[in-house]
Amino acid sequence: MKILILGGDGYLGWPTAMHLSDHGHDVAVVDNYLRRRLAREEDVETLYPTPNLHERARLWKAQSGKSIEVFIGDLNEWPVVERVFRKFEPEAIVHYAEQPSAPYSMLNREAATLTIHNNLGVTANLIYAVREFCPDAHLVKLGTMGEYGTPNIDIEEGWLDIEHKGRKDRFLYPRQAGSLYHTTKVMDTDLLWYYVRMWDLRVTDLMQGPVYGVFTDQNREDDRLLPFFSYDELFGTVLNRFIVQAVAGYPLTVYGKGGQTRGYLNMRDTVNCLQLSLENPAEPGELRIFNQFTEPFSVNELADKVQRVGNQAGLGVQIKSLPNPRKEKEEHYYNPAHTGLIDLGLKPNLLTDEVLAEMLDFVARHKDRIEKHAIFRGTKWA
Amino acid sequence: MKILILGGDGYLGWPTAMHLSDHGHDVAVVDNYLRRRLAREEDVETLYPTPNLHERARLWKAQSGKSIEVFIGDLNEWPVVERVFRKFEPEAIVHYAEQPSAPYSMLNREAATLTIHNNLGVTANLIYAVREFCPDAHLVKLGTMGEYGTPNIDIEEGWLDIEHKGRKDRFLYPRQAGSLYHTTKVMDTDLLWYYVRMWDLRVTDLMQGPVYGVFTDQNREDDRLLPFFSYDELFGTVLNRFIVQAVAGYPLTVYGKGGQTRGYLNMRDTVNCLQLSLENPAEPGELRIFNQFTEPFSVNELADKVQRVGNQAGLGVQIKSLPNPRKEKEEHYYNPAHTGLIDLGLKPNLLTDEVLAEMLDFVARHKDRIEKHAIFRGTKWA
Repeated sequence: MKILILGGDGYLGWPTAMHLSDHGHDVAVVDNYLRRRLAREEDVETLYPTPNLHERARLWKAQSGKSIEVFIGDLNEWPVVERVFRKFEPEAIVHYAEQPSAPYSMLNREAATLTIHNNLGVTANLIYAVREFCPDAHLVKLGTMGEYGTPNIDIEEGWLDIEHKGRKDRFLYPRQAGSLYHTTKVMDTDLLWYYVRMWDLRVTDLMQGPVYGVFTDQNREDDRLLPFFSYDELFGTVLNRFIVQAVAGYPLTVYGKGGQTRGYLNMRDTVNCLQLSLENPAEPGELRIFNQFTEPFSVNELADKVQRVGNQAGLGVQIKSLPNPRKEKEEHYYNPAHTGLIDLGLKPNLLTDEVLAEMLDFVARHKDRIEKHAIFRGTKWA
Repeated sequence: MKILILGGDGYLGWPTAMHLSDHGHDVAVVDNYLRRRLAREEDVETLYPTPNLHERARLWKAQSGKSIEVFIGDLNEWPVVERVFRKFEPEAIVHYAEQPSAPYSMLNREAATLTIHNNLGVTANLIYAVREFCPDAHLVKLGTMGEYGTPNIDIEEGWLDIEHKGRKDRFLYPRQAGSLYHTTKVMDTDLLWYYVRMWDLRVTDLMQGPVYGVFTDQNREDDRLLPFFSYDELFGTVLNRFIVQAVAGYPLTVYGKGGQTRGYLNMRDTVNCLQLSLENPAEPGELRIFNQFTEPFSVNELADKVQRVGNQAGLGVQIKSLPNPRKEKEEHYYNPAHTGLIDLGLKPNLLTDEVLAEMLDFVARHKDRIEKHAIFRGTKWA
């Protein structure tokens, strides 16, 4: 299948590209290096340098014999969209091309405006591109479990049957996100749901939880094929951050009470979920939604795990509760369904002590590059 | 109260400005004439020419002795926002500054992108402006009943209590709009709801139905103070269009079966609803939602009314069912609540035969300016 990956330079984009290429698909990637530029501007560089996309594609070709086509350009610009779609003629598109950081989106007005303009502009252009160039293509969009927020009822997979005053209907599950970034993902869903109904697009929306790890089957032989690894307050996800903090001798940064619970998954499961979704596409006129995570944990549970495994490695890990810079529930009900991808065949890679030990070991190799100033700045959300 | 009206040049913006000024408020208006520019570009000019905002403010001053301050500029540009908010220091803001046409938003990619960029960009800038310059100001945003779509359950006023698997929570009422324009209003609601929770903004969201008429207490003496009157396929609302069609001897354009039901209101009620909402503001951290309409009608009911009253005036009105250019339910359940504004004191002006006769009479004075090419073009939505 000809699969186009928007945002192919990212933490998830590049591993997804190699994984799909490895499994026999014809893959192309597009990126404008926005994520790299923002991290540099905010002085929060990744744990180790990462080759550019053209170089990564050459390295992958040398290792695997398979080609990944590279396009560099801003998908907010229609001529870029047109060039890519005309040249590659995708049968499926994976949409990762969004400003991906909740804390970044809360920094200031300029960052908020960039997030809105970039994320919705690219999604709108993508919808029009599918309509114009490949109306039968399957569009797989990365949403986030954060769209649902932390409601007091069970979270279903995307949809909710509601009975009200003796009548019934089925609706998108109510969304109420906890950051501007997450809110742009809700707005993406609004847009896609509208055009699915109007133009019979085929769309899968993957409501993903926070991802941890770096390893997939494709990047074990050459470190230059690893994805970005961010550990800073803006772009790092919580478990990756804790691992770096443990290695650096920095007390694990638990915000507030630490009861904030989310559904997590291993990078290996992300790439498998994408493959499963692409190889079992949505129907025309269908907005299919999966909750993409494997295990729920509270922040305290994650901190305890990292402390325990870190201490076994002699790291003497401390945990410190900090005043929460975010406005969020620190203790709440959380019971999200997540059977759709399991039904398609997902075999979860769970967060075992071995996985944690491997991550600690990996990060320790880059210990001298950890910049403590990037770990915590306390940017206030409210 | 110092009230700033964004989009003060529009069909509703200008009558609202005069009404609030007349009732003792200190009013300023901002507009970039986007609506005028788009109508000209699409060759769908209004029924009669309308003076520019500065001229209207002078005419109003001459009639009433009251001043309305005028700012011209694009609220997507932050320096414009900053200048207006610093200079006027509003205590309340009415947000009409959006590309207001559903059919326009469906014309092509450029129109869709303009609608998304304009509507969400202005709303985002407005949120940041309130945060920075007047955090206690009350923000009144014009939403639309179209955000709800046509669900198979009763439509409540903005919120829905949901019981699911033995647990309960309260959510924004599910939204599923029928055009891109309406979808941008849903996305506005997402944005406002997020920042209400995060920054304790005071927001009233008026979910308005289609408005008809032109007259208010402030514009009976001088026709130059009347609002725009659009009757074309892009910018005209359905009842105003039917009136013009009846006068022009053009068969009333009913799309499909004509069972499409919406809640309508008279322009006089719009300006009263705005006054009531402003004089009874939302609390900090409250997103207060009212369904702003007075009577539900199907398209067939409106056509029948216009035909009956038109025929009494000797117009010989025909009704013609056309293939529906839109993708929408043509027969559906529709039972929306609308008690919030009545509870605040609204006294509805209903759609009587006298009101229809007055509108027919008014439009007949401009009969020679009706351009039949603007009435129906059949732009397909799907």
